[in-house]
Amino acid sequence: MRPTGKLHLGHYFGVIKNWVELQEEHEAFFMVADWHALTTGYRRVEEIPNHTQDMLIDWLALGIDPSKSTLFLQSKVKEHAELFLIFSMITPKSWLEWNPTYKDTKYNLLRLTDLSLTFRGGLRDHVKTFLARLPYKVEDFEALEELLLDYLSDAMIQALFEGYLEKSLLQELNVSKRDFYDTDTYGFLGYPVLQAVDILIYKAQAVPVGEDQLPHVELSREIARRFNGLYGETFPEPQAMLTQTPRLPGTDGRKMSKSYDNAIYFADSPEQVEKKVMSFFTDPQKLRRGDPGRPEICPVFFYHRLFGPQENAQEIEGDCRSGRLGCVDCKRLMLEKLQGFLAPFRERRESVAKDRDALLQVVSSGTEKARAVALQTVQEVRQKLGVG
Amino acid sequence: MRPTGKLHLGHYFGVIKNWVELQEEHEAFFMVADWHALTTGYRRVEEIPNHTQDMLIDWLALGIDPSKSTLFLQSKVKEHAELFLIFSMITPKSWLEWNPTYKDTKYNLLRLTDLSLTFRGGLRDHVKTFLARLPYKVEDFEALEELLLDYLSDAMIQALFEGYLEKSLLQELNVSKRDFYDTDTYGFLGYPVLQAVDILIYKAQAVPVGEDQLPHVELSREIARRFNGLYGETFPEPQAMLTQTPRLPGTDGRKMSKSYDNAIYFADSPEQVEKKVMSFFTDPQKLRRGDPGRPEICPVFFYHRLFGPQENAQEIEGDCRSGRLGCVDCKRLMLEKLQGFLAPFRERRESVAKDRDALLQVVSSGTEKARAVALQTVQEVRQKLGVG
Repeated sequence: MRPTGKLHLGHYFGVIKNWVELQEEHEAFFMVADWHALTTGYRRVEEIPNHTQDMLIDWLALGIDPSKSTLFLQSKVKEHAELFLIFSMITPKSWLEWNPTYKDTKYNLLRLTDLSLTFRGGLRDHVKTFLARLPYKVEDFEALEELLLDYLSDAMIQALFEGYLEKSLLQELNVSKRDFYDTDTYGFLGYPVLQAVDILIYKAQAVPVGEDQLPHVELSREIARRFNGLYGETFPEPQAMLTQTPRLPGTDGRKMSKSYDNAIYFADSPEQVEKKVMSFFTDPQKLRRGDPGRPEICPVFFYHRLFGPQENAQEIEGDCRSGRLGCVDCKRLMLEKLQGFLAPFRERRESVAKDRDALLQVVSSGTEKARAVALQTVQEVRQKLGVG
Repeated sequence: MRPTGKLHLGHYFGVIKNWVELQEEHEAFFMVADWHALTTGYRRVEEIPNHTQDMLIDWLALGIDPSKSTLFLQSKVKEHAELFLIFSMITPKSWLEWNPTYKDTKYNLLRLTDLSLTFRGGLRDHVKTFLARLPYKVEDFEALEELLLDYLSDAMIQALFEGYLEKSLLQELNVSKRDFYDTDTYGFLGYPVLQAVDILIYKAQAVPVGEDQLPHVELSREIARRFNGLYGETFPEPQAMLTQTPRLPGTDGRKMSKSYDNAIYFADSPEQVEKKVMSFFTDPQKLRRGDPGRPEICPVFFYHRLFGPQENAQEIEGDCRSGRLGCVDCKRLMLEKLQGFLAPFRERRESVAKDRDALLQVVSSGTEKARAVALQTVQEVRQKLGVG
């Protein structure tokens, strides 16, 4: 997990709860991916140390147990960098460029998908004419047409940045040259290689991931296969362990996320939690008690169902629909459950946060343990490469 | 220097002679770039250990003095990998893609330069027509035209590989898909980043390079500037120390090179050297003694001039032109000088090669010294990044 700072409910129900269960039955490694934080955040490094510490405190408070699992910092295990360098040499660039997450993130960040589609739309007819006049024999006309459209869109986008197309369009799209170059680093292209290292260096057999991370696990498998093929059997092919990741609504009804400023944190005080819950978005058609509500679109009701018990949630659902229950009262009921849920975690959080030495000790002994495993793998790799 | 194995005359007069002089006045670091050997040679790793050893023996035999300089193996200093990972994050991908050496090597290896030019020639007129009909306003028509031609050539080359263009063309060009993907790895694109690490991690002030390496030193400066700008003054900007690198002819008259199998090695026995010299290419118009020769195109004469003394070379030049001196005699004369030049090196080489323990000791103490410097730099870097 990247060092994102304090964790919120979304992190818990999406990831940590699952980790806590997994550590009971598996030998588990949980890593603060602080090198990965640099891929998109290399201009904001000053926040990394605090984010790392806050996140570690929450890991322990939420139930990650250092006596069962290995907690460590990626950047303290130099062997990650070493294996990254080695994997770089055997990973075709095209594997990375075709990685959907790379394309997505890059273009999402820049809002260029629309731009690219606009260009493609505008170019389609011209490309047909162009192709018909090509001085080369074409075997698969349609495939080449698609390829050219891709390339031409890219060329057009580059032309925008180089100033060959009108500047007003750039302004309209709110895209700056600097944004583009800043995101599009060599390391950003290679971060799936670094992820493959994070997995393979521990010879992991399974990786708990959400669906969006499947292409990365697949890439790890491909790199493992390629390495094994070149230098002999070394890495097991890791399996993706698909986890249920419910989409938790934040106070504004959108997905709970730090960047939307709509999250409830385990570090929040009871007063902060109360304030946030009372400001929750609810059904906008239900203005006052008596108006019938629609629990299915109400984030407050989502939490009634999440915390249960289910009979109580059913009762609330009925009372909301009938109008008998007003939103303020409904929020108070939910608040009570939420505070009850948060209280033990908050208590543990405070005691963990107080004892920084113990926290340091957990991380340093975890890092030592991780490093021993990583070192062994890298030594095996170096021997196979003849630079042992 | 990559671990190329035994060194030949071309290495000595092109590089090592210069190093031997530099170590007298500078604190010098000489590195066996064994990680770099993987960028293009990751399928032939079994040769790296022997090549490394042979090259180190020659370094010492040719005058690199471990009491004055630091000799070390790149792969034994893990901090190179660590700084590579960090620099990856701040290096725009475009800096690497526009690196002329990257483009050159990639396309040379694949003999695709000609192909690309062919495509561009064929496309030029079509692109003009295409552009005139574009549904977008163009500010700089010619610049966009050039850009499109570049992109279209690339698209055409890809189309070849994807099979959208006729297969016979591929066969004619003797290009296989596997060659393409094998060379075009993520690490190959990033090797100038690794070179920047090799320089900056020692805070080098100067790098002795040939002209073809200037873009890499420039990239190191750019990465240094970018890092300093982001995180505060850390790295000096290294200067390129341009060295005279005479083009030494091999036995066939082409540039002396291992891959042309035309080289004279310091490890060659006197008998091998004699055989090679007697088989040297000479002026093909001079068939027998009496025929006038052209010393300016004769590689044997090149060595007469190289070894001197210059009065003797002038005499030989005259005797060759007049026809008085036959090629066999001329080779014998040159052989005598060459054997005299090689003898002390060969002697030293044998004594160095005999004492493997001493060699190991040189490398391990050099590596220790290099690592101490590298570690200090990386610690400073980590502190500035907040992952110290």
